Amino acid sequence: MKITDIKVFVTCPGRNFVTVKVYTDQGLTGVGDATLNGRELAVASYLKDHVVPCLLDRDPMRSEDIWHYLYRGAYWRRGPVTMAAIAAIDTALWDLKAKAANMPLYQLLGGASRDRVLCYTHAQGREISEAVDAVGARIEQGYKAVRAQVGIPGLPDVYGTGSSGVTNTAADSDLPKEEVWSTAKYMPRIPALFEELRAAHGADVHLLHDTHHRLTPIEAARLAKDLEPYRLFWLEDTVPAENQDGFRLIRQHSTTPLAVGEVFNTIWDCKQLIEEQLIDFIRTTCVHAGGPTALRRIMDFAGVHHVRTACHGAADMSPICLGANLHLDLWVPNFGIQEYSGYTDEMLSVFPHAWTFSDGYLHPGDAPGHGVDFDETLADKHPYQRAYLPVNRLEDGTLWHW
Amino acid sequence: MKITDIKVFVTCPGRNFVTVKVYTDQGLTGVGDATLNGRELAVASYLKDHVVPCLLDRDPMRSEDIWHYLYRGAYWRRGPVTMAAIAAIDTALWDLKAKAANMPLYQLLGGASRDRVLCYTHAQGREISEAVDAVGARIEQGYKAVRAQVGIPGLPDVYGTGSSGVTNTAADSDLPKEEVWSTAKYMPRIPALFEELRAAHGADVHLLHDTHHRLTPIEAARLAKDLEPYRLFWLEDTVPAENQDGFRLIRQHSTTPLAVGEVFNTIWDCKQLIEEQLIDFIRTTCVHAGGPTALRRIMDFAGVHHVRTACHGAADMSPICLGANLHLDLWVPNFGIQEYSGYTDEMLSVFPHAWTFSDGYLHPGDAPGHGVDFDETLADKHPYQRAYLPVNRLEDGTLWHW
Amino acid sequence: MKITDIKVFVTCPGRNFVTVKVYTDQGLTGVGDATLNGRELAVASYLKDHVVPCLLDRDPMRSEDIWHYLYRGAYWRRGPVTMAAIAAIDTALWDLKAKAANMPLYQLLGGASRDRVLCYTHAQGREISEAVDAVGARIEQGYKAVRAQVGIPGLPDVYGTGSSGVTNTAADSDLPKEEVWSTAKYMPRIPALFEELRAAHGADVHLLHDTHHRLTPIEAARLAKDLEPYRLFWLEDTVPAENQDGFRLIRQHSTTPLAVGEVFNTIWDCKQLIEEQLIDFIRTTCVHAGGPTALRRIMDFAGVHHVRTACHGAADMSPICLGANLHLDLWVPNFGIQEYSGYTDEMLSVFPHAWTFSDGYLHPGDAPGHGVDFDETLADKHPYQRAYLPVNRLEDGTLWHW
Amino acid sequence: MKITDIKVFVTCPGRNFVTVKVYTDQGLTGVGDATLNGRELAVASYLKDHVVPCLLDRDPMRSEDIWHYLYRGAYWRRGPVTMAAIAAIDTALWDLKAKAANMPLYQLLGGASRDRVLCYTHAQGREISEAVDAVGARIEQGYKAVRAQVGIPGLPDVYGTGSSGVTNTAADSDLPKEEVWSTAKYMPRIPALFEELRAAHGADVHLLHDTHHRLTPIEAARLAKDLEPYRLFWLEDTVPAENQDGFRLIRQHSTTPLAVGEVFNTIWDCKQLIEEQLIDFIRTTCVHAGGPTALRRIMDFAGVHHVRTACHGAADMSPICLGANLHLDLWVPNFGIQEYSGYTDEMLSVFPHAWTFSDGYLHPGDAPGHGVDFDETLADKHPYQRAYLPVNRLEDGTLWHW
Repeated sequence: MKITDIKVFVTCPGRNFVTVKVYTDQGLTGVGDATLNGRELAVASYLKDHVVPCLLDRDPMRSEDIWHYLYRGAYWRRGPVTMAAIAAIDTALWDLKAKAANMPLYQLLGGASRDRVLCYTHAQGREISEAVDAVGARIEQGYKAVRAQVGIPGLPDVYGTGSSGVTNTAADSDLPKEEVWSTAKYMPRIPALFEELRAAHGADVHLLHDTHHRLTPIEAARLAKDLEPYRLFWLEDTVPAENQDGFRLIRQHSTTPLAVGEVFNTIWDCKQLIEEQLIDFIRTTCVHAGGPTALRRIMDFAGVHHVRTACHGAADMSPICLGANLHLDLWVPNFGIQEYSGYTDEMLSVFPHAWTFSDGYLHPGDAPGHGVDFDETLADKHPYQRAYLPVNRLEDGTLWHW
Repeated sequence: MKITDIKVFVTCPGRNFVTVKVYTDQGLTGVGDATLNGRELAVASYLKDHVVPCLLDRDPMRSEDIWHYLYRGAYWRRGPVTMAAIAAIDTALWDLKAKAANMPLYQLLGGASRDRVLCYTHAQGREISEAVDAVGARIEQGYKAVRAQVGIPGLPDVYGTGSSGVTNTAADSDLPKEEVWSTAKYMPRIPALFEELRAAHGADVHLLHDTHHRLTPIEAARLAKDLEPYRLFWLEDTVPAENQDGFRLIRQHSTTPLAVGEVFNTIWDCKQLIEEQLIDFIRTTCVHAGGPTALRRIMDFAGVHHVRTACHGAADMSPICLGANLHLDLWVPNFGIQEYSGYTDEMLSVFPHAWTFSDGYLHPGDAPGHGVDFDETLADKHPYQRAYLPVNRLEDGTLWHW
Repeated sequence: MKITDIKVFVTCPGRNFVTVKVYTDQGLTGVGDATLNGRELAVASYLKDHVVPCLLDRDPMRSEDIWHYLYRGAYWRRGPVTMAAIAAIDTALWDLKAKAANMPLYQLLGGASRDRVLCYTHAQGREISEAVDAVGARIEQGYKAVRAQVGIPGLPDVYGTGSSGVTNTAADSDLPKEEVWSTAKYMPRIPALFEELRAAHGADVHLLHDTHHRLTPIEAARLAKDLEPYRLFWLEDTVPAENQDGFRLIRQHSTTPLAVGEVFNTIWDCKQLIEEQLIDFIRTTCVHAGGPTALRRIMDFAGVHHVRTACHGAADMSPICLGANLHLDLWVPNFGIQEYSGYTDEMLSVFPHAWTFSDGYLHPGDAPGHGVDFDETLADKHPYQRAYLPVNRLEDGTLWHW
Repeated sequence: MKITDIKVFVTCPGRNFVTVKVYTDQGLTGVGDATLNGRELAVASYLKDHVVPCLLDRDPMRSEDIWHYLYRGAYWRRGPVTMAAIAAIDTALWDLKAKAANMPLYQLLGGASRDRVLCYTHAQGREISEAVDAVGARIEQGYKAVRAQVGIPGLPDVYGTGSSGVTNTAADSDLPKEEVWSTAKYMPRIPALFEELRAAHGADVHLLHDTHHRLTPIEAARLAKDLEPYRLFWLEDTVPAENQDGFRLIRQHSTTPLAVGEVFNTIWDCKQLIEEQLIDFIRTTCVHAGGPTALRRIMDFAGVHHVRTACHGAADMSPICLGANLHLDLWVPNFGIQEYSGYTDEMLSVFPHAWTFSDGYLHPGDAPGHGVDFDETLADKHPYQRAYLPVNRLEDGTLWHW
């Protein structure tokens, strides 16, 4: 079999998604997600201008070789743009191979290790009461696990806290908004939120919280300790993680489980975190961590160290990525949970998919391949629109993490 | 002062170079290098499509804030494409600021710590005798330090060994050649080369060697040990360095000085290597490590740990990057050496420059800014041509490092 | 440009300050602070007798080279006297260079990373109620952060606790008073103080406390833990820090943020504290840590490890040092806070300055250089007066830390 | 007993020495060395202006209390100026106390642990043959241990290598000479020197070498390894030691014993070096490490870790310091060796002394106190003359270590 063409699409059915489609001389195709929120066109260029010409006429069954051809062959390794491009090709090749085998992808990975995939979703409110209600609504929808965020008194709307509407639709902002952050105002708010949540919804529901990399290690340690009475499923993205040592301090002070990793692109970004068991859940996801070939290796490495998987699953990756993740989730022995923030109908119409949600669980479906397709014609009607998530500044104007 | 425009140029006067030019409302401009060999257009897209719109109307004097705006604000951090884009902007802003101060850039860094900048260049041959002669020719040109490579018996031409011609001109290959590698054939060849080199050229000239990341740690340890009698200035890029632990094994076995780092994009890629003093020279360079703002931090971090600087300086970065490096070189207390492989006259004509070479040393010159300009009109005559360096496979076909 | 003269002044407009002024053949001058409280004349001698003769005719733009000339060239490195002398020269040279560039110093460092510089000030009382009122008065003056100290029942006045008047005016004591200390009496007092402070002033104001190096590690761990309910901004100078390991024990037991460093003179004094993230704020200051050249390196090293800056800013350094600090503060990415205990009008009249205070924030101003000048004529009217801060003894007479 | 006066003398009988003399109401006196080469007047000011006034009327028998009064009481701790001042007072008080006991100082320390004190001296030559002869002459004088240095081909005279005359007499240079250094030229020279020395003088004589802090860790490792065949007693001052980690690398590669420490002022400067057994000999000396009170503690700490003592004993400390060292040497269980470079007759005439040299060994003598006196009248005839040792620059102009 030979690769005869690879097309790269950028479409915006509510959010920008980058999609790769690999064509072969035997008519088989595969699709992969290459979305890198806010840097979509750079990945598209990386693929169209530099990757595609090098892959034509190659055997699509040699996905391992092609992965290394792209990773090692580029000389310049790692990073979000490079790894999203590799991930897109790799996902498409695994899709194609599973279709060639006439099997759902999870079978090629080793088959299902479980019947269904536990997921968590998001709920939030400007006020605690509103957030408590939002979590309640999610529980009624069948969710067993909910990430709860809340607005911070004294701060205007901040991304990822309790603003109510949908964030970052394409129409949203063609330049990043500059928001304001205060950790001091945030710190006492979160234990108060979870105290109310446990009072309202009991001990059974899994509750999660995301701090969006905004804390220092000692602040994270304090928050993790303060949250212990409320038995969180996890506390996520406490501190920026380039300096992996930073998690040691948090770890000393609390038994609140820790999750991190949606920003990691390779195993090297989390090797120390996993080896030293500084985290409990690794959140690397298919599109940002180099595709199934690389993500499987990270998952296996985590398994050696009692770290469980928890693939990132927000709308900054396309439904293709979610589909691929679900196959890995169904297979991986050390599975933890899958994020699932959902998509609009408009988005889903461009990405017909086999995966299903029911009673708080997802399943990848049993269609051959990863089960997510791409409607080129419909995609054409939603051209790229420049759109950015906000950036974050401290009250004194310092550019901060978010 | 305000940024009024930023233009991105891709030109190929023999090789592809990506250049950024920042314009202000006060007429001052600054230029920066954004070249990422073989992935040029992805960086150009990253800049044009995603960075430029966000920087218009900002104060160009706030280079530190803009660095973090781009690094933290993108959410997806690190990697060669992202950091080359940030580097280009940062280099241009420092150029602009030094011009505003009417000073050469090195004055803003702390002034000259030395009179001139020691550099090394390249020499090679298919046969040892040819390589010995080539090194001799370099010595006659005044070079005090020469990197010597040689062809490997039993292997066809391999990039970075002893092929004599000029590599990677734009006309060269619009797809990567696939070359063949054998570490077993390579290992005994190099001590033989350096035995002859020392016999022919004596003890005074600094001799260096580059293994292009092709060895395993134990092989690298053996080679480093075998080379001890010839007192190399350094042995470079022995093993792939994502797993920084890998250097411990080499370090245990030899006192041959070690250099690595042209592929690193942030301090996080070399933090452990430096902290544990596993290397002696850090080869991060302006364009690939985030510009002067970030490179200065890596250099200072290295200084704490007895690691000296040795900026990458091959023709896969433009003369602008070399110019910026030279200002950092002239200033940095823990300077080691600067690579200088030279440029063709055609390349240099597009980049008028203040730096000079004399008697084996470089100097950045005393023009305000970093002293390298960009001739847009001339650049227009050399449009981008797709061009790739080769990839490397073992004799059994395995995709290998290079 | 050449250094034509360097003058050293010791003046006492309420407190003793040592000032250096560098003159050049082009008329440009720069000033630096060399104040070392209680050892002023030793630094003045170090400068006048040993440093000044060696610097005449040198190029003042080569600040990095001169720094190493003084640090390495002296053979005997480190320590408060040496580093204060180097700092004074270095501060003056950066002042001079920024004037030559016609820019405020912060532009040469990388430009402003924030709009203004958060500062904290001091408040204290013999009784808790008096301290609570004093903090309230500071809040009314606009301060967002206040360091609160209180008298210890059963002990006479102790420096740095709750004595109300101004300490250490020149007329104060020409020999050190010998005070009495009891950690046992101190330990329960502080949580009581902060309980009252939070009750009176709410959760929003940042509260800090300084223990003046008087505790052992296990005592410090206990105090830090006892203070957790009151969410201090930091607990400062808990134990003497020559043995950096000492902080590990404190760190294990509490998430109260820790600050230390006003007594450190080099990066070597805090390398382990920072690398192991045993502290959260590094309090090195321009005059005692070798000037902007060295302080910038400490700040950047701290940044790698999630440690934030918090320059010492009491009246044992002159307004020149505060000015230089503020430029570093406005620039440094990992800024935390700046101490600001204020100066008397008499002091300020000798040091005309561009920095301003408003609504709890400082700004260095936009005058070229660091923006603080020195009025030689006025200084002449305030000759040096021997003056010492007290020393500290335990109740059994043991000479103790303070 | 009360201290009634303390006088500080600076005299230059060939070199500058700072001396402290403590007077009491009972007529007893004690003398101490406060010499800090090239910074003599700063120490004199530190003592006269800041220390002396605080010590009048105190009980000189309370030497421990006074040590802490000066160390802790100054607030600003450590460093060469501070510790030389404290050392001078401390040495004088121990001298005084031993006189009061009518005993030689070593008796108060615990009595003699050996009969005599092995010492090493210096020999050098511009050429290897000259150095070999110089060592031979020392052996004939009875020395059992000789530090051998040699001139470096291709470099002009460099301090501490093989220049033949006496260096740094007071008449020498009132400003530091700027010398030139090349480690590359130095490295192969030293094994050649020791090969010749062993050939000429056999295996019995202890041979030592000093590299004056001029190497990087990997260079030091290489040199230590290259010297193994010649079984050095030690290799001294290989790398600058502020970053104590730096010695780990050297240690991995060689069993050549390592010595360092003449530049250390406190136990904190060598704690890690000793704890991790990264060195074999600790070279702290009385005047630069805080006097007998502090030096005894460093020696005892070293004893816990198999590190032996080797007090610095060049002419940059006065004969008083040598005398005090010899008492510590005679007592300390983990004694290694004592440096002894000798003094001119002119110097010795100002410092009448009880210590004796015979057959390669020194003995402190049995006079009460430390046995070294100070002739004020004679000293008056040799006023201070500004004099500096040289500084060191690399061939490219970089200010280097020396």
